[in-house]
Amino acid sequence: MGVVVQNIERASLDIIDRLAACGVATVHEAQGRKGLLASYMRPIYSGARIAASAVTISSPPGDNWMVHVAIEQLREGDMMVLAPTSPCEDGYFGDLLATSAQARGCKGLIIEAGVRDVADLTEMKFPVWSKAIFAQGTVKETVGSVNVPIICAGALINPGDVIVADDDGVCVVKREEAAEVADKAEARVAAEVAKRARLAAGELGLDIYDMRKRLAEKGLKYV
Amino acid sequence: MGVVVQNIERASLDIIDRLAACGVATVHEAQGRKGLLASYMRPIYSGARIAASAVTISSPPGDNWMVHVAIEQLREGDMMVLAPTSPCEDGYFGDLLATSAQARGCKGLIIEAGVRDVADLTEMKFPVWSKAIFAQGTVKETVGSVNVPIICAGALINPGDVIVADDDGVCVVKREEAAEVADKAEARVAAEVAKRARLAAGELGLDIYDMRKRLAEKGLKYV
Amino acid sequence: MGVVVQNIERASLDIIDRLAACGVATVHEAQGRKGLLASYMRPIYSGARIAASAVTISSPPGDNWMVHVAIEQLREGDMMVLAPTSPCEDGYFGDLLATSAQARGCKGLIIEAGVRDVADLTEMKFPVWSKAIFAQGTVKETVGSVNVPIICAGALINPGDVIVADDDGVCVVKREEAAEVADKAEARVAAEVAKRARLAAGELGLDIYDMRKRLAEKGLKYV
Amino acid sequence: MGVVVQNIERASLDIIDRLAACGVATVHEAQGRKGLLASYMRPIYSGARIAASAVTISSPPGDNWMVHVAIEQLREGDMMVLAPTSPCEDGYFGDLLATSAQARGCKGLIIEAGVRDVADLTEMKFPVWSKAIFAQGTVKETVGSVNVPIICAGALINPGDVIVADDDGVCVVKREEAAEVADKAEARVAAEVAKRARLAAGELGLDIYDMRKRLAEKGLKYV
Amino acid sequence: MGVVVQNIERASLDIIDRLAACGVATVHEAQGRKGLLASYMRPIYSGARIAASAVTISSPPGDNWMVHVAIEQLREGDMMVLAPTSPCEDGYFGDLLATSAQARGCKGLIIEAGVRDVADLTEMKFPVWSKAIFAQGTVKETVGSVNVPIICAGALINPGDVIVADDDGVCVVKREEAAEVADKAEARVAAEVAKRARLAAGELGLDIYDMRKRLAEKGLKYV
Amino acid sequence: MGVVVQNIERASLDIIDRLAACGVATVHEAQGRKGLLASYMRPIYSGARIAASAVTISSPPGDNWMVHVAIEQLREGDMMVLAPTSPCEDGYFGDLLATSAQARGCKGLIIEAGVRDVADLTEMKFPVWSKAIFAQGTVKETVGSVNVPIICAGALINPGDVIVADDDGVCVVKREEAAEVADKAEARVAAEVAKRARLAAGELGLDIYDMRKRLAEKGLKYV
Repeated sequence: MGVVVQNIERASLDIIDRLAACGVATVHEAQGRKGLLASYMRPIYSGARIAASAVTISSPPGDNWMVHVAIEQLREGDMMVLAPTSPCEDGYFGDLLATSAQARGCKGLIIEAGVRDVADLTEMKFPVWSKAIFAQGTVKETVGSVNVPIICAGALINPGDVIVADDDGVCVVKREEAAEVADKAEARVAAEVAKRARLAAGELGLDIYDMRKRLAEKGLKYV
Repeated sequence: MGVVVQNIERASLDIIDRLAACGVATVHEAQGRKGLLASYMRPIYSGARIAASAVTISSPPGDNWMVHVAIEQLREGDMMVLAPTSPCEDGYFGDLLATSAQARGCKGLIIEAGVRDVADLTEMKFPVWSKAIFAQGTVKETVGSVNVPIICAGALINPGDVIVADDDGVCVVKREEAAEVADKAEARVAAEVAKRARLAAGELGLDIYDMRKRLAEKGLKYV
Repeated sequence: MGVVVQNIERASLDIIDRLAACGVATVHEAQGRKGLLASYMRPIYSGARIAASAVTISSPPGDNWMVHVAIEQLREGDMMVLAPTSPCEDGYFGDLLATSAQARGCKGLIIEAGVRDVADLTEMKFPVWSKAIFAQGTVKETVGSVNVPIICAGALINPGDVIVADDDGVCVVKREEAAEVADKAEARVAAEVAKRARLAAGELGLDIYDMRKRLAEKGLKYV
Repeated sequence: MGVVVQNIERASLDIIDRLAACGVATVHEAQGRKGLLASYMRPIYSGARIAASAVTISSPPGDNWMVHVAIEQLREGDMMVLAPTSPCEDGYFGDLLATSAQARGCKGLIIEAGVRDVADLTEMKFPVWSKAIFAQGTVKETVGSVNVPIICAGALINPGDVIVADDDGVCVVKREEAAEVADKAEARVAAEVAKRARLAAGELGLDIYDMRKRLAEKGLKYV
Repeated sequence: MGVVVQNIERASLDIIDRLAACGVATVHEAQGRKGLLASYMRPIYSGARIAASAVTISSPPGDNWMVHVAIEQLREGDMMVLAPTSPCEDGYFGDLLATSAQARGCKGLIIEAGVRDVADLTEMKFPVWSKAIFAQGTVKETVGSVNVPIICAGALINPGDVIVADDDGVCVVKREEAAEVADKAEARVAAEVAKRARLAAGELGLDIYDMRKRLAEKGLKYV
Repeated sequence: MGVVVQNIERASLDIIDRLAACGVATVHEAQGRKGLLASYMRPIYSGARIAASAVTISSPPGDNWMVHVAIEQLREGDMMVLAPTSPCEDGYFGDLLATSAQARGCKGLIIEAGVRDVADLTEMKFPVWSKAIFAQGTVKETVGSVNVPIICAGALINPGDVIVADDDGVCVVKREEAAEVADKAEARVAAEVAKRARLAAGELGLDIYDMRKRLAEKGLKYV
């Protein structure tokens, strides 16, 4: 309890950017339908789509001291990911912390708890995906840890893993698998172009994916 | 299990359009305060107001095969309404399926489960009312049914019923009652014009609706 | 049961405006981290920030009769705050009632239940913070009370208390404490200007707030 | 609005008893995995297993007047099934109503709302499956309906349908299908005897159901 | 913040015992259908029915220090009532604290958070009504208050108020009103004896309460 | 996707039994307040207290095929731990599977989904901690994995980790740390004996733990 890991490995910025371009749904599919955080993690405003290396934070309920500690560990292009040690929706984070984080190159925050000053954060274009919007203040009494593995909204996140977040939610990609997942995700995007054109022209998925025979075998009846 | 009903009756497009113009709250009142889907059915973006004939889908949890089947049954001006056979928030539907549905004249989707690619769907102006936004992928292994009666978010929906949906949520109107409900809803809209003017001018509902005497009889005391 | 208190004391409009300018998070902190309503109280549209004197309403579930009664008690610059006597998400309030309330100078509504006609309310710029958006109609059969103390979303609200509401949620300030809280809140706002500048320049909270020594004493280890 | 249907058809008591003997899980499977009420419908005490004909009640939120009306419609071996017209957890039902219902041969209550006096009901052996235990009192102001089709906890229930309820929850069987479902359910029970003996002796489902080949075809790897 | 009020007034033990004998549902009705805590406050075991004077505790989330402080303030026949300052389900209380509280005459605990060691508490016959059962440990870092007014599970509780709790949940009676409420509650109990006998004999509430005419006036139709 | 790991390491049965004797709350504290599963994981009956090695199962929503596969991997003294790949409350497990598992020495089941036949399981003394009790049947169409790391109810569980479960909920202990945690847990149990005696004799925690001075320093005031 109470550890700050200072040097973590990160994926290359190039790979991170490629994952951001693909978006959450595609990346989730590309890595075998895994890595999604729970659906209650929602963006405070629409339209952001980012990817970044995770600087993880494990904090006690109602205590945001470790956010200050984590900010020092941020590098350009990172994102903070905070999970409380027990369920909590207090407002760990607001515009002052966002100003500090943004000054150090932080791209956003994933927090399985609450956030406040959301009008300011929206104006600052500092995106947050959170479990709640709640102004409840927090204390600074108990230490937690920075850059240790955490479970956030049902997903295991290791420091340095790549987080992809957009209007669909949040997905984590293991750092070691990031390059491979980016390749697969881009392949999916490319493959979808042709499919989309055929579907837009009125062709049916039933025909494009050749589903009719298998549906009949499974017993589907048309009446 | 596993039936597709191919020819369903629909209300006339004229009646459907009249119901759309009245909106969910008015239609709900006009038909005797019934037909609302649960309040957790929320639009993925604000500002859409539509009405359409329901093409219903009963699907297993985590299996979106029947959406492909349903798309073939769509006619211009229809809407899909999907209820899973047990509670589920997986992302049954995204931009490719929306492209296909839109190509066949589909106006939108009501789904008591999850939806993904919401940024794309918003850009496409394909409105969805869902229980969750969640990128979780689904399989295509088990057949369900299309155009059978379903219970969606607490409401019974028969294929061909008229669905009205806007920022207030979703309401179902039985096909057989659609014309009568449209009449009543328009009458309410008309009646509200005069009331709104009087209220805007500062008159009180207490007086307009003549409530003071009955309130006193019920024991209300002013102190 | 069934009382309308007609003359309530209110805070001065000047103090109310000063509290509005500070916003929910700052006011909550300034009064010692108290007064927040539960996080499920959300605005129907983004961007409103208001403060007003509370005209309170205690209503039975599914019965909005007392809203009509309360509107007569409104003065310029008031806000209605409604709590049902048992949990309910019916749509007690819509565009007609908003027209009436707005005509009497009402700034908005806080309701631990449902609201409907939200597209209209948004266009009218009548802000509402509610537990649900739900078109379900209500009856007018059972009396409740107006301007009595209520518990709304977990907070005690006395008639005439100041309600502050913005995108972060809702906070109540006791009328008797409003002037003092406004002073403290403005002091916080002023103090934050300098801090924000230092943080924006890259200084760390760890240093500004002199946290390093105490963190070490509490056992935080850097590795 | 406001109808009492006095003469409803019921399944035979013999079929009802056979369904009770099979229990919820078996009956649900026997009729093709349909008919379950939502999992939040829980018994107030463990160990009851019953089946009965449904006398349905549609009641406004917080108004239990229709329960009195429904009791007159009960026949020996019936059960009441209540759904509020909008979500509610008030305590519609307690020991006095149970005394009255029990005096008329009522076997129990299914209520998508609250119940109170649960210690007394337990002592009286009057089983209730409810959404909540809550003492909140209700009014008698607004009429509803008795013996009309209702949606209760996500399931469509027609008057006279057979309700099966036990520690696993609640399942509805359409009256017209009750005899056929009883046959199928008993066949399942009989078939399970042999399976249970083989499984108890240590045989594996993998072998009994011959799953190994299909698992391999689906790509399952042992490492 | 951080106050312990040492001398609080309490209702007489005689009145408290009379309220306990009546139980939650009756007391709630007797005082005009108010005072109930939210339905999520459930007993850790069935069968307890108690009443006691409230020693109130306001505690930060995840910090149970004030429970130790509160125990010193207990007198024979008291009960502790704890509300966290923001939503929390951590296990503030277990068998050691219960041993200490019981040694000082404490009858039980109402806690809008978590409790642990529930098997031990059940064996000790120390009843607890809580929002959650959760073993999560807490810290002792931040002071709160004892014997100040709190909002617990949606109800305002002043120190010295009488808490009634049984299998139906929890109800608070204002100290100043306790004697009057006890009288009314006992009158209800007495009145119910005769009603119960008539209902048990098969008379209908429709007739006993003379409801038929008013139902007809409200439009109820028998078909 | 689709892997069964056949040989996993387990903690010694002696250590497992020692952890069971200490119980969930003590083990959780002994390992530094970590490892708890979410509080919604509740036992289907009261009074069970067990510890066992985890055989983990990752299953698609509504598909229990992998339970059959997992049963073959069980050894005497194991427990199954199932997490669906997306949220689900279907009834993956009932009396037949329990018969099979029990025949192979399985001590119980932890399942972040539903379970059915709970009356039978109770009679069989086969304890289950689940998210829901729900009879909903499942299919056998899509493979998952057995004995891979899973996230169950917010906790990371590796195959072979020790699961401790009782009326307080469920806690996981890493296999590698099990011996050390057992030592610490037993030390806590021993230390609590003396404390319990002092508290039972009326000594205060305030004195036993010497809290008064620190409380005063933190600003606690007695009035």
